[in-house]
Amino acid sequence: MTELVLTQVDGGVMIIRMNRPDKKNALVGEMYAALAEAFARGEADDDIGVFLLAGVGADFTAGNDLKDFLTWEALTGSVADAFIRAVVTAKKPVVAMVRGAAMGIGATILPHCDLAYASPTARFLTPFINLGIVPEAGSSQTLAQLAGHRKAAELLMLGEPFDAATALAAGLLNAVVPDDELEAVAMAACRKLAAKPRATLLMVKALMKTAPEPILDRLTREAAVFDLCLKRPELKEAVAAFAEKRPPDFSKCPR
Amino acid sequence: MTELVLTQVDGGVMIIRMNRPDKKNALVGEMYAALAEAFARGEADDDIGVFLLAGVGADFTAGNDLKDFLTWEALTGSVADAFIRAVVTAKKPVVAMVRGAAMGIGATILPHCDLAYASPTARFLTPFINLGIVPEAGSSQTLAQLAGHRKAAELLMLGEPFDAATALAAGLLNAVVPDDELEAVAMAACRKLAAKPRATLLMVKALMKTAPEPILDRLTREAAVFDLCLKRPELKEAVAAFAEKRPPDFSKCPR
Amino acid sequence: MTELVLTQVDGGVMIIRMNRPDKKNALVGEMYAALAEAFARGEADDDIGVFLLAGVGADFTAGNDLKDFLTWEALTGSVADAFIRAVVTAKKPVVAMVRGAAMGIGATILPHCDLAYASPTARFLTPFINLGIVPEAGSSQTLAQLAGHRKAAELLMLGEPFDAATALAAGLLNAVVPDDELEAVAMAACRKLAAKPRATLLMVKALMKTAPEPILDRLTREAAVFDLCLKRPELKEAVAAFAEKRPPDFSKCPR
Repeated sequence: MTELVLTQVDGGVMIIRMNRPDKKNALVGEMYAALAEAFARGEADDDIGVFLLAGVGADFTAGNDLKDFLTWEALTGSVADAFIRAVVTAKKPVVAMVRGAAMGIGATILPHCDLAYASPTARFLTPFINLGIVPEAGSSQTLAQLAGHRKAAELLMLGEPFDAATALAAGLLNAVVPDDELEAVAMAACRKLAAKPRATLLMVKALMKTAPEPILDRLTREAAVFDLCLKRPELKEAVAAFAEKRPPDFSKCPR
Repeated sequence: MTELVLTQVDGGVMIIRMNRPDKKNALVGEMYAALAEAFARGEADDDIGVFLLAGVGADFTAGNDLKDFLTWEALTGSVADAFIRAVVTAKKPVVAMVRGAAMGIGATILPHCDLAYASPTARFLTPFINLGIVPEAGSSQTLAQLAGHRKAAELLMLGEPFDAATALAAGLLNAVVPDDELEAVAMAACRKLAAKPRATLLMVKALMKTAPEPILDRLTREAAVFDLCLKRPELKEAVAAFAEKRPPDFSKCPR
Repeated sequence: MTELVLTQVDGGVMIIRMNRPDKKNALVGEMYAALAEAFARGEADDDIGVFLLAGVGADFTAGNDLKDFLTWEALTGSVADAFIRAVVTAKKPVVAMVRGAAMGIGATILPHCDLAYASPTARFLTPFINLGIVPEAGSSQTLAQLAGHRKAAELLMLGEPFDAATALAAGLLNAVVPDDELEAVAMAACRKLAAKPRATLLMVKALMKTAPEPILDRLTREAAVFDLCLKRPELKEAVAAFAEKRPPDFSKCPR
């Protein structure tokens, strides 16, 4: 039987692909479970520094398979919930590469990715209202934080398709690039992340993913982590490399 | 005596118009009271699904009547406060349609509307600093959340007029449309909202209006509401309509 | 010995300039201390209404002197921390004027300024990840609030330079103006702020700098301050000036 989720590792990058291309990679239960499992595996593997989430073929994902919804007992505690939480809580950076359909969870997962690139073929949709269900993956909160309440209300209350340029303006994407360059652009970003000092990168992401707090509290929190960095070898290597006019080599720093 | 606030109902849409056009719809006490009362009436009326807030004539509203301020004892507990809170707490969607003057509360009420459309004639102003008063309607918070602190400080500390394009970029509006299409565009949006499954739409809005919280808490909150939706008839109707290639009819779903 | 931080007062505006132009105004310990001290002095001086933060020569600041980092014991409790907190907690408005290098703290301090103008010569960089350290000055939080997590992650996880247009789009700036007009534009903004009713301006800034809270709490907070304003002389002067078609004169209002 064909694997519905494919994973491969390339130079510290774990590429996770939804693989049901004849159904625009629409998600069914076992795919969510496999996705969550892949993220768990990558998080635990010291050879993995970065995740790349993508679809096989012309689409990212059309979201949850429509008829499948009728079989659901609950989102709470489901495999879909497990997948969402796996991405939301990933300690390692997650990059998304989007072409074709990015619907439902295919759109609402993007605010939890660190970098996201799309091609002009991407078509987004947050159709929940049209199905008599409510937004998931935190999108009732994330979209307004990214694009303001007016735009978020347009997307979530009217439930009409939107294109890559709109998704970019709404803060879901870092860039829209030609379809035939998309893989190269996304992989280049992943490789750059994989070459960063790993321990520092995880500290940066952890700080960025900490819920907003009064600014003086954030200063204190950041400074405490900064102080730890001052005692680590990465800074010494960076300064030495700069003085010696060579690229830094963080590969020997503890992860 | 002419009514200072006009209301009419059109296909589930309650249209509320400020009606003091010779004064650019500048607001006085009885207008705030009538506006708050209209929202309360619409909220309680099962035949109403959506509010449209607009002005009669060439203007939205020039804000509070300037000389009237000198008669104020307090904003706290006032009819102006009641109007603001009526819009902020409305459970049903609120659409705003803006042309001409949108000053003071005419600008600061917009972040609490779900959709807002303006014509190029719109002129915005948050003049509080120039009057020796502070921003109201939450605008000391909402503008920075929408447009960032630099832009919000420009609008609130310098207190200079801005146009519709600036208001759009600042997140106050969904779109700027030609003046002679404004009514049609705003009403079309209202009609779309009125045709959505009502109970679901109120759940979507309630989630979106819940104050930001740590993302895992939001996932839990959304999933709990999603689970309720799975047991309701709207999803079944949507899936059946999709399978039968017909538009869904949510009119028989409980509101 | 040359002063590493220059201050001058011009019509209620305290201009603070980092003055180490041969090192692109890279910051060392005594500069942070002098900057913090200048802000403290300006805050305490009734003749000062506004701060303008700038660099001498072609640059704002290249950020912390790189080799200097190796001598740091901690950010917590340091003079750098004192400078950051001085800007973050300034009660009076802070305007930034940026040309050339705006790196490290030179970029991350901008979200705490109220207005910021740059010339096209400005080059921004948040290089922390490349140095094995984490973002400071609250930038692990402020950048995502301003530009969304995708853009913030790009800036903080990839650590690549960005230009003034990108900084403007990311919400760090109010405007990009030609280099030979930058001083005039920044000073004009400062003079406008200095001419506003001082006590009101401080109340506006205090409200804007209050951490986000549930919106009904914000309405209550704003209304309480608004009520105080109604009993102050600024509003009467503004209304009288409007009626008499003259500019208001707030200079006699208590500060």
